[in-house]
Amino acid sequence: MARSINLAVIPGDGIGTEVVSQGLKVLRAVLPQEVKLETEEYDLGARRWHATGETLPDSELERLKAHDAILLGAIGDPSVPSGVLERGLLLRLRFAFDHFVNLRPSRLLPNTPTPLAGDPEIDFVVVREGTEGPYVGNGGSLRTGTPAEVATEVSLNTAHGVERVVRDAYERANARPRKKLTLVHKNNVLVYAGHLWKNTFDRVGREYPEVTTDYLHVDAATIFLVNDPARFDVIVTDNLFGDILTDLAAAITGGIGLAASGNINPTGEFPSMFEPVHGSAPDIAGTGKADPTATILSVALLLQHLGLTAEAARVEEAVTADLHERAALGTRTTDEIGDALAVRVSG
Amino acid sequence: MARSINLAVIPGDGIGTEVVSQGLKVLRAVLPQEVKLETEEYDLGARRWHATGETLPDSELERLKAHDAILLGAIGDPSVPSGVLERGLLLRLRFAFDHFVNLRPSRLLPNTPTPLAGDPEIDFVVVREGTEGPYVGNGGSLRTGTPAEVATEVSLNTAHGVERVVRDAYERANARPRKKLTLVHKNNVLVYAGHLWKNTFDRVGREYPEVTTDYLHVDAATIFLVNDPARFDVIVTDNLFGDILTDLAAAITGGIGLAASGNINPTGEFPSMFEPVHGSAPDIAGTGKADPTATILSVALLLQHLGLTAEAARVEEAVTADLHERAALGTRTTDEIGDALAVRVSG
Ligand SMILES: CC(C)[C@H](C(=O)O)[C@@H](O)C(=O)O
Ligand SMILES: CC(C)[C@H](C(=O)O)[C@@H](O)C(=O)O
Repeated sequence: MARSINLAVIPGDGIGTEVVSQGLKVLRAVLPQEVKLETEEYDLGARRWHATGETLPDSELERLKAHDAILLGAIGDPSVPSGVLERGLLLRLRFAFDHFVNLRPSRLLPNTPTPLAGDPEIDFVVVREGTEGPYVGNGGSLRTGTPAEVATEVSLNTAHGVERVVRDAYERANARPRKKLTLVHKNNVLVYAGHLWKNTFDRVGREYPEVTTDYLHVDAATIFLVNDPARFDVIVTDNLFGDILTDLAAAITGGIGLAASGNINPTGEFPSMFEPVHGSAPDIAGTGKADPTATILSVALLLQHLGLTAEAARVEEAVTADLHERAALGTRTTDEIGDALAVRVSG
Repeated sequence: MARSINLAVIPGDGIGTEVVSQGLKVLRAVLPQEVKLETEEYDLGARRWHATGETLPDSELERLKAHDAILLGAIGDPSVPSGVLERGLLLRLRFAFDHFVNLRPSRLLPNTPTPLAGDPEIDFVVVREGTEGPYVGNGGSLRTGTPAEVATEVSLNTAHGVERVVRDAYERANARPRKKLTLVHKNNVLVYAGHLWKNTFDRVGREYPEVTTDYLHVDAATIFLVNDPARFDVIVTDNLFGDILTDLAAAITGGIGLAASGNINPTGEFPSMFEPVHGSAPDIAGTGKADPTATILSVALLLQHLGLTAEAARVEEAVTADLHERAALGTRTTDEIGDALAVRVSG
C-alpha cells in the first residue's frame, strides 16, 4: 500500500532541535520505501519570540492543521518569561487541536536503572486529559504586585471533556491483558470537579463490565507509584494530576530521558502531536548529552497512531535492545544514540 | 516552671481512635510532673455525622478555640460521601483556626525501609500553605448530572496568605544548617497564582541573604524526590502541591505510618492542630495493625510548638531507637508500639 506522511516538525528550544533530528533519523530509517515522508519544519519557540514577539501566529496554526501529525521537541527557555511559550505555544497547540488524550506509557525496560529498590515490574499507561482542568488558562490577578493582591486559577471541567477521555481510557484498558483502570483525582477536596469525574467514571464503567476499576486520591497515587507500581495498568486523570504523575512515572522507569508522549485527537479532526515528556533542558543544550530516546519512543507512538504498527514495534524493539547494551557501551552522544537506533530499525 | 496544657483530642474515624490513644500514652509518659495535662475528647467524625448530620457545629468550634492545642487522629469513612467530613470537619478546622503553616518534616531514619535504592540521605521539611489555594472550596457545578455539566474549582491566592507562609519558610530555612529553600509551584501553566508565589518568594528572599533558594515546577519536584531527595532542605509550596509532595515524601521515608504533621497558627491566635499525615485506613481499623508512630511523632511536634523542646527531643529519640530494633522485634500491635515508646520516653 503506497502512502505518504505529511509531518510537521517543531524542534523548539534547547535540546529540542537535537532530539528531534534523531527522531527524524530513526523515522526515515524505519519507514518502508513505499511510504513517502514529507516534513516541514516550523520555526516556533524562544528564538522566534525574541525576534518577532510571536508565539504561535494564527496563520501558522492554520498551516499546521494540514499535516498528518506533528513531531515536537521541547518548548521553553529561561530568557523568556515563564508561561509565555508554554501557554502561547505548547498549550495553545494542545487546546487548538483538541488533544484531549495525552497518552503517556510507562514501562520499566530490562537493564534500565530505576531509583526504586527490588526491581519492580512496571508497565502502565497514563491517559491524561489534555484540554481542560486547571490548564484552561482561566485565572487572573487583582491589585497585582501590591500587598492586597489576589490571584486566581480556575479549573474548568465539562461532562463532554471528561466523558470522552474516560471512555478512551476504558477502551485502552479493555484492550490490555489485565483490563484494569484506575481513576486518580482528589474528590475529597475538589468535590465539584471530583464528583463529575467520579460519576462519569462509574457510569461509563457500566459499559465495560470486564474492566476492573479503582479510585485513588492523587496523593495516595504517588505513594503507590513508588511502593507498588505493579498495581497500575491504565490510569485516567485530570490534566494537572496527569502532569505530576507522569513525571514521577518517568522517574521510576529510567528517567525523563526515556518518557514518550502523544497528544492525541482521537477523532482525527486535527493532527495529533508527539513529543518527549522532558523539557528543553537549556543546561545541557549543545553539549550532545541529551538522550534522544524519549523522542524516538514518541516516534513509535506516532507510527502507531498512523497505523504503522509493525514499524512502531520495530522502533520499540530497537530501543529495548539498545537499553540492554547501554551499561556496556558507556556514554554516547545524542547523535550516536540516534545512529545506533537508526541502524537497528533498518537492519 | 509549673504549667498546664489544655489539650483537645479529636480521635475521629477508623484507626484515628487507636493511634490517638497511643499518642496520649506517650505524651503522658514524657511530660514532667510539674506540667499538668488536661484533655477533652471531642466526638467528631463519621459516627456523629450519621447520628446527627453534624460535621463541626459552631458551638464545638467555639469550645475548641479555648484549648492550647488539638491532637487529631484521622477523619473519613467510606460510609460518608467523599468530601463531607474532609471539607466539613478537617478543612473547616484548618481554615477556621487559620493553620497557615502545614508543617511536614521528612527524615529517613536509620534502619527504616525505603522503596528507594542506594540508601539516600533524606532530611527536609515541607512548609505547605494551609488556608488557601485550590482548597478554599470555591467551586460549583452547573447542570449537574447532565451531559452539559460544567464543574469548576477555583484556586484563591492572596499576597497576605502567600507572604506569611513564605516568610515562615525562610525563617525555618535560616535556622537550619544548610539554609536552603525551594519553592515548588507550576508557574509556567498556573501563571497568575504562580507569579504571585514566585514574586513573593523572590522579594521576601532579599531579607534572607544567607538562604540559598531555588524554584522547581511540581512535576520536576516529584522526580527529584525519588532521584535526589538529598537536595531538599526546606520546601515551601501551595496547599494542593504540598498535599501531593508530602505523601510522596512520606512514602520514600518509610511510609505513611511514620509521617507527622502540624497545622500551625504561628500567631497563637488559635490553637494549632497536630495529626498524622495518614488517613483513617478503615481497612485495618480494629485489627491492631495501625502504626501509631506518625501520631507519636506528631505529639513531638506538639511539644515543640508548646516550647517543651527537651520532651519533644525525647519522643523523637525514642522513635529513632525503636525503629532501630523494628526488624528484630517482628510484628507488634498498635498498643505494643505505643507501650514500647511510652517506656522509652519515661526511662
Ligand atoms: C511544559 C509544560 C507546560 C508541560 C505541561 O505542564 O503539560 C510539561 O510539563 C508536560 O508535561 O508536557
Ligand atoms: C484528608 C484530606 C482532606 C487531607 C488533605 O488533602 O489535606 C489529607 O490528604 C492530608 O494531607 O492531610
